[in-house]
Amino acid sequence: MAAVNRQIQLAELPKDKLGLEHFRLGEGAMPHAKDGELLLRVRYISLDAANRAWMQGATYRSALEAGQVMAGGALAEVVEAKAPGFASGDLVFADTGWQEYAVLPAKRVQKLEKREPLTHLLSVYGVAGLTAYFGLLNVGQPKAGETVVVSAAAGSVGSFVGQIAKIKGCRVVGIAGGAKKCAWLKSELGFDEAIDYKAVAVGGALKDAAPKGIDVYFDNVGGDILEACLFRMSNHGRIACCGAVSQYDGVAPRHGPRGIPGLIVTKRLTMKGFVVMDFDDERAKALSDLEGWVKAGKLKVPEDVMNGLENTPKALIGLLAGDNIGKRMVKVV
Amino acid sequence: MAAVNRQIQLAELPKDKLGLEHFRLGEGAMPHAKDGELLLRVRYISLDAANRAWMQGATYRSALEAGQVMAGGALAEVVEAKAPGFASGDLVFADTGWQEYAVLPAKRVQKLEKREPLTHLLSVYGVAGLTAYFGLLNVGQPKAGETVVVSAAAGSVGSFVGQIAKIKGCRVVGIAGGAKKCAWLKSELGFDEAIDYKAVAVGGALKDAAPKGIDVYFDNVGGDILEACLFRMSNHGRIACCGAVSQYDGVAPRHGPRGIPGLIVTKRLTMKGFVVMDFDDERAKALSDLEGWVKAGKLKVPEDVMNGLENTPKALIGLLAGDNIGKRMVKVV
Repeated sequence: MAAVNRQIQLAELPKDKLGLEHFRLGEGAMPHAKDGELLLRVRYISLDAANRAWMQGATYRSALEAGQVMAGGALAEVVEAKAPGFASGDLVFADTGWQEYAVLPAKRVQKLEKREPLTHLLSVYGVAGLTAYFGLLNVGQPKAGETVVVSAAAGSVGSFVGQIAKIKGCRVVGIAGGAKKCAWLKSELGFDEAIDYKAVAVGGALKDAAPKGIDVYFDNVGGDILEACLFRMSNHGRIACCGAVSQYDGVAPRHGPRGIPGLIVTKRLTMKGFVVMDFDDERAKALSDLEGWVKAGKLKVPEDVMNGLENTPKALIGLLAGDNIGKRMVKVV
Repeated sequence: MAAVNRQIQLAELPKDKLGLEHFRLGEGAMPHAKDGELLLRVRYISLDAANRAWMQGATYRSALEAGQVMAGGALAEVVEAKAPGFASGDLVFADTGWQEYAVLPAKRVQKLEKREPLTHLLSVYGVAGLTAYFGLLNVGQPKAGETVVVSAAAGSVGSFVGQIAKIKGCRVVGIAGGAKKCAWLKSELGFDEAIDYKAVAVGGALKDAAPKGIDVYFDNVGGDILEACLFRMSNHGRIACCGAVSQYDGVAPRHGPRGIPGLIVTKRLTMKGFVVMDFDDERAKALSDLEGWVKAGKLKVPEDVMNGLENTPKALIGLLAGDNIGKRMVKVV
């Protein structure tokens, strides 16, 4: 075992755009597990827009502070178990932070069944896949034949949302940045239409891509794209509010989208926020469905794996700029 | 029967604030019922913020146009019935417009059971009472012990919302304009707290009035008050979007409330729009509940009745300025 624990620390909190200067590579002492705790070796770090949101203030977790090891979820292996129910070699998902080793109380660690490839535990069988599954099906409640629109469609969650909506018989429109991603959504993932928000006005493009209106909008971005979709929703449409990646990396927006609450009332829309932890009871069913679709070749699993702990800040900054296609993660070891 | 039909016509559509100059008192020929139609004599005209919203564009009904008889719902009596199921003397609710007589197809008319006083058919047993009932109970789903906040609390809908929430065992906070209304909400209707939005900052006042956060917010107003409530919602809170009276009388707002979708996600809120027609199937149960509460003295029925068709424009303009306490209507005959 290593004598030191390499880690990425949050040097200072960003005031607007996140940059490499907000991080530093440091070393901590090797941590030791006490009773009830586990010593974990971090294998793959998950990169998520939420990493950036945590720097803005308290969300469903407390806000990050300068000087801390950067927080983040990871796939890790148990090295030493001082808690019942865990053994050396077990695979877990936990908020280890961006470091090689971490000690956590066993109750804050989620044991995972081994699956191959391991990376799928962070993508389709991890938070991304489950978020797509619950947000689309439980919150959005699409029916066959309805039109589903998803933003950040080439991202880790969006790429699953669109594919699951296709499996459920919906017309699927993805919104993504760049011609390459848009072509990929249609050719590789089977989306019916894709809108490049960097090239065209989304509102106008939606008139063509969703001519009967939008029944379910899965919102990963907030801001102007949410506003454009609001104006194209059908009566009794549902908006699953998953995140607001357009608003994480910079100063807080001064206003929300126009049309609220006016369009909510006249179209009888439902907007509903959710986080994946709210659906823990239904996790087994969801994993079983997802695995069935993957094995049947109906659900492709786009992954974007970078190498080396030291590249994690760059991986997050790139994610916020939309560089990734599919689930981005960093292989630590 | 009169030889002419006095009516209030929409002289021109308002560009911003509605004034008397947008209306004119005119005379039409007495209308005659054809097969399938009813000749109605208008008794009481209902004044609603929605009257103003219809001037802004298509909502759940088509937009109003200059030159038309001003649209509006009323309690009316059948004078001549040329449709099965109706007889002279029947009471109905219909969009008669602001005039003494109207002819409507029978299928666009809702027959009402007689109740005393007649005015209750436009208040507690009419759209106002049913909107409060369905919006609070079906959309808001309050549980005993939860905190319910309602805006435009001294208005036709809000005054019922707060009282029904008290009947259901909730802590009730009303938001209204002026010390007189606020005192009345507490002393006459039994609200726990009332916030005078003209005198204090609503966000700060909510910290004191709803110290555990808001579980259900019944929104009649939109705009800044909706924003203030959003920031004080509890996790898993519900916002019943009933209207946006703050935004009807003037130019359309340039932006929506801050915190959308960020707070919707992190607090897992639900915002849901509704209109009372969506709940027609449950109307009988609702009327039975409302009547039971009125007869038991648990639900007071504040009404604000003005006299004379010619005063209807003034009645609406005053309603938009918040002059009324309880359900405003104009007695025509």
